[in-house]
Amino acid sequence: MKKLMNGADTILSESLAGFTQAHADIVTLDGSGKFVRRRELRPGKVALVSGGGSGHEPLHAGFVGIGMLDAACPGQVFTSPTPDQMVEAAQAVDTGAGVLFIVKNYEGDVMNFDMAAEMMADMTGAQVQQLITNDDIAVEDSLFTTGRRGVAGTLVVEKIVGAAAEQGMDLAGLKALGERVNRACRSFGVALSSCTVPAAGKPTFDIGEGEMEFGVGIHGEPGRRRAPLATADAIAAEMCEGIVKDLGQVAGRNALLFVNGFGGTPLMELYLMHHSARRLFEGHGVQIARSLTGSYVTALDMAGCSITLALLDDDLLALWDAPVRTAALRWGV
Amino acid sequence: MKKLMNGADTILSESLAGFTQAHADIVTLDGSGKFVRRRELRPGKVALVSGGGSGHEPLHAGFVGIGMLDAACPGQVFTSPTPDQMVEAAQAVDTGAGVLFIVKNYEGDVMNFDMAAEMMADMTGAQVQQLITNDDIAVEDSLFTTGRRGVAGTLVVEKIVGAAAEQGMDLAGLKALGERVNRACRSFGVALSSCTVPAAGKPTFDIGEGEMEFGVGIHGEPGRRRAPLATADAIAAEMCEGIVKDLGQVAGRNALLFVNGFGGTPLMELYLMHHSARRLFEGHGVQIARSLTGSYVTALDMAGCSITLALLDDDLLALWDAPVRTAALRWGV
Repeated sequence: MKKLMNGADTILSESLAGFTQAHADIVTLDGSGKFVRRRELRPGKVALVSGGGSGHEPLHAGFVGIGMLDAACPGQVFTSPTPDQMVEAAQAVDTGAGVLFIVKNYEGDVMNFDMAAEMMADMTGAQVQQLITNDDIAVEDSLFTTGRRGVAGTLVVEKIVGAAAEQGMDLAGLKALGERVNRACRSFGVALSSCTVPAAGKPTFDIGEGEMEFGVGIHGEPGRRRAPLATADAIAAEMCEGIVKDLGQVAGRNALLFVNGFGGTPLMELYLMHHSARRLFEGHGVQIARSLTGSYVTALDMAGCSITLALLDDDLLALWDAPVRTAALRWGV
Repeated sequence: MKKLMNGADTILSESLAGFTQAHADIVTLDGSGKFVRRRELRPGKVALVSGGGSGHEPLHAGFVGIGMLDAACPGQVFTSPTPDQMVEAAQAVDTGAGVLFIVKNYEGDVMNFDMAAEMMADMTGAQVQQLITNDDIAVEDSLFTTGRRGVAGTLVVEKIVGAAAEQGMDLAGLKALGERVNRACRSFGVALSSCTVPAAGKPTFDIGEGEMEFGVGIHGEPGRRRAPLATADAIAAEMCEGIVKDLGQVAGRNALLFVNGFGGTPLMELYLMHHSARRLFEGHGVQIARSLTGSYVTALDMAGCSITLALLDDDLLALWDAPVRTAALRWGV
């Protein structure tokens, strides 16, 4: 294993310390290092709290700030944060308008956020709602997950719901909006290499020189099949056709095309995939109205990428365009 | 070799096509694909043109836009662009106030930009000046370079000179400003893996499981020595001490700390390096007034990072903070 680290037991705390030092104008780390929160809260705004295992950076801490999240709870690498982290974070950012938990669909995360929501309601009487993302169409019921996994589409949900929260939408409205955005998103990933969890010290899975894992999850969990490495166009075609088929009617719809790197793949290849995916979606009559290209929802050092298509009506496009100021996404402010 | 591509001969053109489609609000690709330029020029502003081999994305095309470059010329992977590319780009963006070429110190780039400057002067009588960056303190006179290499500090030069150009500074002033920023920057890189040039199809260099290339260049060229992989703190200490020693007097100075990934290293490790480097520089009395953390000046899929410290006086900090709207750096607009 080759990593820039001092030890597997301190990689998370040192990385979080560096992150919050580097972005001290936007975020702060609570005293015990349990969560990252916005430096300045906005009284009366519904608080958005997300979290999950570390190793997916910049997700979620990189999306804390104006126009997106109020707090993020990082677990150990690829391990759910604990209910007490979530409760502490929610209490720290709730200004009285309620809390929305945004949760990627993995069993550990869902269970712990569930427990945190109950604890919050019991302890404080606070209004807490949950929003589950499950945009990955590659597989049903995979390792760690019942149903579909929540992957890169979570960024789209957090951005759009975050903008609406900033504009004053109430908790029930935000939950419904998030469910609508989640339903509008479909993702599909491919890995060319494994990732290596620091504490494990060896690759999560073995993969041959000429192979890819087609439909991989963001923890390196198995996808649809192991297959010979194909051309970018052939890979994109199978991913995009799967997405279009799953979405149903797409012709004439405006969409965000999000090509997401898994951590070990350079931008040059991601833009090439954008080019390929765009042509395929446009062939189905989709209007690529917005795009995002980069490594935002990662799996440590895994090579590969995912493609997300989000069909966005005009009101959702406007929320996507709304100002955002976080460590990883920033425009308009 | 595992890359998301259709073939080594089309990776550059397809990636550039995707890049300009994804950022069509900011940039455009000229008809023959020779350079990326700003969609909207500002008459009377000095034009800033950079370029170099591809494989360092987002450098340079990702820095074309308001507040940074007017045009970028991409060569083939790790290969200088040609003088005719540079001349075409310069002619396309010169609005009469002259052109400043920003050139990383590599022999091929320097020679071709030299030739382009002469051709521009002969053909059009345009005012053309050149600014060479050479911030890498790791080695002198390495493969491809006489003197020191120009690396991640080039981003800092392009940002600050770009802001001053936007504010109306003239050509001579911009050249002098760029030289001042370059003198204020020092960088040092380390690689944990090689990169693989698509046309070569195999790693540029061999490196053992327990080794690092200390002082590596952004094409995978040799550094100071091959050494056993050390802890992040030990690596950062040697890099930062080298930088401080080379800068001389640093106590009490404001600085930008830029931790740059080489393409294959995830953010989690880069923020950990930020944490380590910050502590070391602060120990020398440096005030870390600004920071940037991410993969901006890359070497394809190489794992590793560089640390850049730029000592910035208040006027340079203000130019760093000035609005920028490019594919890869964006704030304030």
